[in-house]
Amino acid sequence: MKTPKSFRLHIGLFGRRNVGKSSLLNALTQQEVSIVSEIAGTTTDPVEKPMELLPLGPVLFIDTAGIDDVGALGEKRIQKTVGVFDRTDLGVIVSSSQEWGEFEEQILQQLQEREVPVIIVLNKADLQTAKSCMLNSFSVSQLPVVETSVVTNQGISKLRQTILKSAPDDFINRPSIVADLVGPGEAAILVVPIDKEAPKGRLILPQVQSIRDLLDGDSFCMVVKERELREALSRFNKPPKLVVTDSQAFLKVAADTPPDIPLTSFSILFARHQGDLTEMVRGAMAIDQLKAGDRVLIAEACSHHPIGEDIGTVKIPRWLTQYVGGQLQFDHARGRDFPANVADYKLIIHCGACMWNRREMLSRLIKARQVGVPLTNYGLTIAYSLGIFERALQPFPAALEVYKELQAIK
Amino acid sequence: MKTPKSFRLHIGLFGRRNVGKSSLLNALTQQEVSIVSEIAGTTTDPVEKPMELLPLGPVLFIDTAGIDDVGALGEKRIQKTVGVFDRTDLGVIVSSSQEWGEFEEQILQQLQEREVPVIIVLNKADLQTAKSCMLNSFSVSQLPVVETSVVTNQGISKLRQTILKSAPDDFINRPSIVADLVGPGEAAILVVPIDKEAPKGRLILPQVQSIRDLLDGDSFCMVVKERELREALSRFNKPPKLVVTDSQAFLKVAADTPPDIPLTSFSILFARHQGDLTEMVRGAMAIDQLKAGDRVLIAEACSHHPIGEDIGTVKIPRWLTQYVGGQLQFDHARGRDFPANVADYKLIIHCGACMWNRREMLSRLIKARQVGVPLTNYGLTIAYSLGIFERALQPFPAALEVYKELQAIK
Repeated sequence: MKTPKSFRLHIGLFGRRNVGKSSLLNALTQQEVSIVSEIAGTTTDPVEKPMELLPLGPVLFIDTAGIDDVGALGEKRIQKTVGVFDRTDLGVIVSSSQEWGEFEEQILQQLQEREVPVIIVLNKADLQTAKSCMLNSFSVSQLPVVETSVVTNQGISKLRQTILKSAPDDFINRPSIVADLVGPGEAAILVVPIDKEAPKGRLILPQVQSIRDLLDGDSFCMVVKERELREALSRFNKPPKLVVTDSQAFLKVAADTPPDIPLTSFSILFARHQGDLTEMVRGAMAIDQLKAGDRVLIAEACSHHPIGEDIGTVKIPRWLTQYVGGQLQFDHARGRDFPANVADYKLIIHCGACMWNRREMLSRLIKARQVGVPLTNYGLTIAYSLGIFERALQPFPAALEVYKELQAIK
Repeated sequence: MKTPKSFRLHIGLFGRRNVGKSSLLNALTQQEVSIVSEIAGTTTDPVEKPMELLPLGPVLFIDTAGIDDVGALGEKRIQKTVGVFDRTDLGVIVSSSQEWGEFEEQILQQLQEREVPVIIVLNKADLQTAKSCMLNSFSVSQLPVVETSVVTNQGISKLRQTILKSAPDDFINRPSIVADLVGPGEAAILVVPIDKEAPKGRLILPQVQSIRDLLDGDSFCMVVKERELREALSRFNKPPKLVVTDSQAFLKVAADTPPDIPLTSFSILFARHQGDLTEMVRGAMAIDQLKAGDRVLIAEACSHHPIGEDIGTVKIPRWLTQYVGGQLQFDHARGRDFPANVADYKLIIHCGACMWNRREMLSRLIKARQVGVPLTNYGLTIAYSLGIFERALQPFPAALEVYKELQAIK
């Protein structure tokens, strides 16, 4: 809860008192974090509720409870709440399908004038017949509409997904790539193998982004192939703070890096930067539960990526088969072509998704969590299969703790 | 002449004996390098002439002198010379405009069947009236045609330009970027300032290419901002072989780098890799000849490049004006928009052209040389203006020697 208010996505929650906004808000967040602070206000003042809305991160719900007691927004009332409209990054208009009227239309107009993205929630879906009668006749037909019920829990996960999708890019907060693990004025070593599949004359994106992130953090880095790592290490008169390697060279790099120097992989950095490292650590540990005949989905963000394809289509299936000691059923998803329902899989293994924004990766994490399917990524899978998982997590105390807890109860 | 034959562009020179092939060949190369070896052959065997054809580099002319003594190529003769067609990377058919006939047509057909690029040379242009009568009636209308005369020297420079343009990409030999200056198992430091104009989350192309080139050469490198350079240098227990900096941080980096460590800039690396460093060193030294009122062309490969634009439109004009102590007339060329005739300029200052292939940069060098206008690049100009030219050239003995010679005769 240390996140400053200015960095939180401000979600304005609008709707009449009887539509169930408060219980909806609780349903939306109860799995994650309870409300920890509530700024007191008069009945006519909006109430601000800072929350952690996973996987999006810190948000600020602005509950406009005090302005929903009359049918229409009078001029005076609009004056009073104009501040809410102005600081709303994302508007959620909660209604029940029989009650969309001038009040909701005026709110929508205020938000659209400010080019604020809007989500329509039709709550109490368990009590309604159909939304179609109302949706066709209003200006909301182009907006995302989610039917929810806090009684049946219908649509709650979809609403979270929709909030994630609709949030402005700036608020899809990315954790740091690597600089926070190294620190200003300190050195990292980046191990970049050059195999025959590496694009000529270039570095791949996660490598470039890591170098740049270190420079932005006033750190510096040695870039070296795995074969020259020992030589490069021998040039330092003070050990570097971190060694990051391509997952494919993990074993050699682990062998050549003194145990007192923290070591991880680009892929694990990107599990944190692009997704949710803790969640993906849990995912990797689900490898232990796999048994012959289980279905595994291997998902790749890029449609064409020779290195990734080799890992995804050849190496990981081989390792997992050896690990499980029996045949698994592998499906492959490429690019945007991700199955709508992933409930049939026992595990999803994703690439680092370095070309995507975080929103997209988080969106897949939600889909998987929704049906209780563990999701992890290539690098974590490789580290786990190779038995160097604990070492690779050392730079990330929270994820390491989750790993140790899960190990303890196994 | 140490370049192995297989790395040379094989230029097949075809034409009847009376068209003046030999004198054309001499004219083409006499400014540069004389013929150093001639493999003896019988009169019916083709003669191979390895040469240095600047700025293209090492080529091998195959003079088919022995097959030009009859009007048409008989079946037996084709068998004998099929080897020449097969190993020709670029075909030059020399004719004089009254003599294009079945002989030339058959050669053309042989080359085109092999998808070999072809240049038509109409030699003895001083003796002819016009080429149009012949060009319209034959299959050559889509091919590059150059009219030449070794008497008046007409077209010789254009022919060199056309050979450069027509040569397959593989033969536009690029000198190394940086790895040869560092060596296997050795370290370089790359200084990468991050200013507000640097693209977010990325490194610019010459930086990425330099890192990759070092990895390809089994070297490794420290990547650091100029502010952390001292700290990074202090981490080495053995000095790095080379420091490369962005030209904009040249003075600070020169001050922070011990004098025994060679220092240069990305821009100077790219003068060599993309163009001709020696030629561009001569170009930079022409700054001393500039006087108030002179016209200077500043050329940029990219149409939109905020950093480059700032250098090209603001910084370099300011430095040069200060250096000359009077107003200069600056013109700016962007992208492909390069003046056809640059004879009016006293100096051309080009960007590093990191996005281009070498052919394009060399092509501009030829244009400039043709009319006797010196050409240099941003980084060399900056180094010269800042008075650190000699230090920045230390890693390049040939260029340094040219500099010292020119200094001596000033």
